[in-house]
Amino acid sequence: MPLSWDQPIKEELRMVEEEIMRNTRSGEPLLTEIATHVISSGGKRMRPGITILSFRAVEGTDLQRTVMLAAAFELVHSATLVHDDINDGADTRRGTEAAYRKYGTQRALITGDFLFVKGFRLGGLVQSDEVVELVADACSQMAESEMLQTMIEHDADLSFEAYVKIITGKTAKPIQASAQVGAYLGGGSPDQIAGLGDFGLNIGLAFQIVDDILDITGKEEDLGKRRGMDVLDGKANLPLMIAMQEQYPSSSRIREIYRKTVKTEEEVEEALRLVQATDALDLARKHADDLRLKALNGLEALPESKYKDALRTLADTILVRDR
Amino acid sequence: MPLSWDQPIKEELRMVEEEIMRNTRSGEPLLTEIATHVISSGGKRMRPGITILSFRAVEGTDLQRTVMLAAAFELVHSATLVHDDINDGADTRRGTEAAYRKYGTQRALITGDFLFVKGFRLGGLVQSDEVVELVADACSQMAESEMLQTMIEHDADLSFEAYVKIITGKTAKPIQASAQVGAYLGGGSPDQIAGLGDFGLNIGLAFQIVDDILDITGKEEDLGKRRGMDVLDGKANLPLMIAMQEQYPSSSRIREIYRKTVKTEEEVEEALRLVQATDALDLARKHADDLRLKALNGLEALPESKYKDALRTLADTILVRDR
Repeated sequence: MPLSWDQPIKEELRMVEEEIMRNTRSGEPLLTEIATHVISSGGKRMRPGITILSFRAVEGTDLQRTVMLAAAFELVHSATLVHDDINDGADTRRGTEAAYRKYGTQRALITGDFLFVKGFRLGGLVQSDEVVELVADACSQMAESEMLQTMIEHDADLSFEAYVKIITGKTAKPIQASAQVGAYLGGGSPDQIAGLGDFGLNIGLAFQIVDDILDITGKEEDLGKRRGMDVLDGKANLPLMIAMQEQYPSSSRIREIYRKTVKTEEEVEEALRLVQATDALDLARKHADDLRLKALNGLEALPESKYKDALRTLADTILVRDR
Repeated sequence: MPLSWDQPIKEELRMVEEEIMRNTRSGEPLLTEIATHVISSGGKRMRPGITILSFRAVEGTDLQRTVMLAAAFELVHSATLVHDDINDGADTRRGTEAAYRKYGTQRALITGDFLFVKGFRLGGLVQSDEVVELVADACSQMAESEMLQTMIEHDADLSFEAYVKIITGKTAKPIQASAQVGAYLGGGSPDQIAGLGDFGLNIGLAFQIVDDILDITGKEEDLGKRRGMDVLDGKANLPLMIAMQEQYPSSSRIREIYRKTVKTEEEVEEALRLVQATDALDLARKHADDLRLKALNGLEALPESKYKDALRTLADTILVRDR
């Protein structure tokens, strides 16, 4: 197995990076600057990576269109992050000052729109109804989830169904679409496209659950952002939801804190400690691992290759990451 | 000449309206509600109207794709209006409470993104690189202009070149693209496509100048929004810029008010009165009318038809409108 998931596709990812950078340039220098700030704030380039790996894993050959689509996913993803940060009032993103903090809300909002346009442009140039529908469907569901999320803030009684619905739309669907589009453009069989779609959906769900766990246990220097943001903002978070179930003696205190629309730093820390004292984190980790195994099943229809190995490595990496 | 520009294309516009409405529906009822609020806040449907008229004027026959594109322009236009209102802090839009006022900034921002996605989806489904590039180029330039606009607020020394650049990107380019796409999908000759592009560009510029004039002279009940917003926000506005030239005795007082980042209602009213006492409004009106005549030249390559007549009526209507 490759040591890192991106090792067999370094060259393809370099091409994706070039395509992304080409699309951050604008006639207005300030727009170029902010778009570059957003795009350069690191990011794991997981979505484009999954597109490329899926494409290679089905032995695709038309690389150019796939590179364009991979870049499109990252551009759209970056656009949503800029807008999310405005909506969440986040200070930093991947260790860098959030765009709206550095440049103001107006300019960040405009830059997000610009990155959306650039991403959709690339998606449209591929001239495939299937691809356009996959991308647009994932993006619509992202908006739906974001909307749902605004309705359940500080709701300590959020159902697990609603939680799954939110993280599916917010995180898993776009990753699923990244995989499906790569497999589709690579000429994969319907089985392979569906299998890679399942892979993407399940590692997407696992990815978000690990994100939830890291929000409670992570180190701020690794995360590149404050810990406990989900408690503070009253966001859906799996271990937190588990620990708020009534069989846990500390649940009533956690719920009390979670429900407050204004919280002190001490209260957030107290809630984090209380969650950590339960088995909620272990249960959440177990759930993420089950999803990882389910994801791996999706790879069955693929021939063995270094790309398939890299997809397995990617699934493992998502579980053990600390940022 | 038809009495109203939309009279010969009532049936096509009804189809566009259906396509727009189909694209405001979402799995999340609140998202559907806000998208519908935005789309239903009236609007003249000028962009889709221009697409359809251009298509008919070149004797196009493939109506279905054109209806999709016409709807796409309106969806993207609505998305930018929702985001603009957030950025401008506008209270009302077309007489209706601005979406972000009614539903909050977060939800309005998400709804704007959703409408963007829906618009670009329709643009992508047409499967034409030319169309995708035209739409994406107009949208990128819109973002560039919006960005430029954030940089020149309260700048009483804004050059006329910069003003033209802003209104070209913000208003004229999208209208130009609406016309070009209609002519292109209708199978127009290169001359006809270019001519309709010129028509769109010039009536777009005229439209924005009339908007500027109405911001100074309009009645609030007609406008559906407050008067004097450009003075208040320090936005680029042609008659205002003219009246701030030093040959006008009152220019120093207008500049003084315009430059303030916080203004009283009395100061705004004073600036409006001072501008109205000069010939700046007449000069701006003259300029808009010159643009209208330039626009009409763009129709020369078209055969005579009720659609060409309607485009002429549209150009006239833009000049005499009071809202």
